[in-house]
Amino acid sequence: MRPCHTLVHAALIVTQDEDRNILENASLAVLDGLVAALGPRSEMTAQWQPEREVDLGQSVLLPGLVNAHTHAAMTFLRGLADDMPLMEWLNSRIFPVEQKLTPEIVRLGSLMGYAEMLRTGTTSCVDMYIFEEAALAAADEAGLRCMGGEAVFAFPSAAFSGPDAVLDETRTLAEKYANHPRLRIGVNPHSVYTTTPEILAACRDLAYELALPLHFHLAETAEETQICLHTHGSRPTTYCHRMGLLDAPCTLAHVVDVTPEELDFLAASGAVVAHNVSSNMKLASGTAPVPAMLERGMPVALGTDGAASNNRLNMFTEMGRTALLHKLTGMDSTLLPAQTVLDMATLGGAAAMHDQRLGSLAVGKAADCVALDLTTPNMQPMYNVVSHLVYAATGMENRMAMVDGEIVYMDGKFTRFDYEALCREMVQVRNFVRGMAERA
Amino acid sequence: MRPCHTLVHAALIVTQDEDRNILENASLAVLDGLVAALGPRSEMTAQWQPEREVDLGQSVLLPGLVNAHTHAAMTFLRGLADDMPLMEWLNSRIFPVEQKLTPEIVRLGSLMGYAEMLRTGTTSCVDMYIFEEAALAAADEAGLRCMGGEAVFAFPSAAFSGPDAVLDETRTLAEKYANHPRLRIGVNPHSVYTTTPEILAACRDLAYELALPLHFHLAETAEETQICLHTHGSRPTTYCHRMGLLDAPCTLAHVVDVTPEELDFLAASGAVVAHNVSSNMKLASGTAPVPAMLERGMPVALGTDGAASNNRLNMFTEMGRTALLHKLTGMDSTLLPAQTVLDMATLGGAAAMHDQRLGSLAVGKAADCVALDLTTPNMQPMYNVVSHLVYAATGMENRMAMVDGEIVYMDGKFTRFDYEALCREMVQVRNFVRGMAERA
Repeated sequence: MRPCHTLVHAALIVTQDEDRNILENASLAVLDGLVAALGPRSEMTAQWQPEREVDLGQSVLLPGLVNAHTHAAMTFLRGLADDMPLMEWLNSRIFPVEQKLTPEIVRLGSLMGYAEMLRTGTTSCVDMYIFEEAALAAADEAGLRCMGGEAVFAFPSAAFSGPDAVLDETRTLAEKYANHPRLRIGVNPHSVYTTTPEILAACRDLAYELALPLHFHLAETAEETQICLHTHGSRPTTYCHRMGLLDAPCTLAHVVDVTPEELDFLAASGAVVAHNVSSNMKLASGTAPVPAMLERGMPVALGTDGAASNNRLNMFTEMGRTALLHKLTGMDSTLLPAQTVLDMATLGGAAAMHDQRLGSLAVGKAADCVALDLTTPNMQPMYNVVSHLVYAATGMENRMAMVDGEIVYMDGKFTRFDYEALCREMVQVRNFVRGMAERA
Repeated sequence: MRPCHTLVHAALIVTQDEDRNILENASLAVLDGLVAALGPRSEMTAQWQPEREVDLGQSVLLPGLVNAHTHAAMTFLRGLADDMPLMEWLNSRIFPVEQKLTPEIVRLGSLMGYAEMLRTGTTSCVDMYIFEEAALAAADEAGLRCMGGEAVFAFPSAAFSGPDAVLDETRTLAEKYANHPRLRIGVNPHSVYTTTPEILAACRDLAYELALPLHFHLAETAEETQICLHTHGSRPTTYCHRMGLLDAPCTLAHVVDVTPEELDFLAASGAVVAHNVSSNMKLASGTAPVPAMLERGMPVALGTDGAASNNRLNMFTEMGRTALLHKLTGMDSTLLPAQTVLDMATLGGAAAMHDQRLGSLAVGKAADCVALDLTTPNMQPMYNVVSHLVYAATGMENRMAMVDGEIVYMDGKFTRFDYEALCREMVQVRNFVRGMAERA
């Protein structure tokens, strides 16, 4: 008998390993935050002596999903303003509130966002916002895995006086979290249209110097393309390519308005795309050419964007909508089959986090997993569990979230923070925001 | 003090009444299956003496959603086959199984489908299938409200030898359920392409004779239009218009491939459209011109279609996807705002059921309501409850389903049938279907 920290039993384990093995009546042994072994329950119980045993019964255990692009803090704005033209929405509702932001609002909004992610089966995210240190503190509090970064703009934010200050902050955060088991820093120029060539070059150089991934918004709308053509004489993706940004490890959010030629050099660069289907639909931004990306072998992940433009941080919602939208727009019901979409939310997400320990359950991988109850009516009957994960599950079937080997959510309870207290604090945040919105 | 059967308390009541009133800290009194009164909790508790009191705490009470087009029995096929071309899917997977159907499979599949609906906030549906008497029996067992009808084809089904036998069955069912409080019969010619002019005329005449609504698939795909043009010399909607079908009370499922002129006479006819956004996306059927329908003042409801082409029977999923898809395809983020979409799932659904007691909570309306927990992370914080219902809720927040004044689902328990026994029976159904699929 070998010792392990936790031994988890489930009716099914969807491993997402190279062969996409699905194990029935199986167990997973966790040691020091990693998967020590997995296999048939009878063999595993004979071989492993756990400190803690968790029997998930009629559940499917799978790798924790990865939210490859979000602004978790913006959860504090959920539902404040919908169904508006983009510019009116930004200028009249979002920006006035963001100018009055405090680190505490960012922490509370982020914590609620992470709570939603863990509750609905997401264990990692790629995050970008202002006062990001407070967002990272919230990720630490919740126990979520996060690659976060302070957004770099050409102008001051509520948090920093300008791009130089943000790059200093990025260095500080990178040093602070250098050895953190779950938190990692990215370099986050907000976008082409909110920065300058000099800022992008400085971000690129910092990413190389500190060996940090770049994460930024790219080619989200046709309007962005027009602005970039007018300002820089080239389309956004071409512009970034010429700047040498795409040669660093990159996570590119949106990538909607892109040409086949741009896709070709994106594919050659190895950049990871975070597809944000809900946000692109809700803001009427357009349809990213995901099938064309996949044809080129590009790594494509899925992201929720922020709650102000989704309004959920639920990766099961993103999987379902992604599968369906591209069948419709491609006029082909065979496009983006369920396994491909699950791969995007897991293995694609690992690529977006630039962390190959994530996205699958195999020996030596991170013990980041979630477990969906298979007994709810929407999961009955079951012929194909991957179909159910993509097409039938809402995410609310999730019973457990384990990150880095630690159970941080189980059957309605968050283990590392007081959720009821958070809800009470969110009422205060809402009242504060309402006051600002009324004065705006 | 006036006596009532049930007094329900909730933090919010979204009434969907003419003024779209939303009541805070309010109560609803139920008497004889109807809303007897609703108003502030303090006033209601002073005025009403209930047999049963239900305090839903931090929940929002709203009219039970209406699923305006489904084949609940097809839940037994959920996830059997996805991501396939439509004709291959029908011919190789669905039809071979449907030829071996039994009333018992229809009953069990329907019961599971209704369980999913009640669990996720739907209290009524418009259903069409074969062996529909078994589906209606399941609706009765579950306590759901249903307008159901046996599908009429030009050819034999597993249930009936041909259209005449189905019309006889429709008469029998209409008589049987004439005075049922929750069940009602529709006349259901399956579609233009599976019937003949003679059959459609007979259905139309029966609908008039028995004062029953018509419910059929119409203009689902461009292929259907081509077949109809070839066979009948006109487009499907024009063909039905000329046949006089649209002058009867009609619930028309899909209505995707339709011209502006056809929309004009559809609007004049008063026919109700059941928009099936998920099914139309998953099967790559196309995008129904919903904004153009709403501009013409047409009643538009939402439906899930069957689980074989969705794969959910969850009206919250349909609301979210409907709001987002039409913003994207209309390239306008202001299209189909949240209140409009909630109206479609409630008041539009009442029109599709041809029952004006449904879809809103006001004195004299049916006591059909559901209650969503507002304390889950995805519902936090809250600025606008209607936004949360359409954009944030998954449906799994639902705690209660009341139909005709009776609580049929509460906090994980179905009150009228043994859900665990149903799950065990579904395993048998699955094994039977798998056997057939392997032999096919």
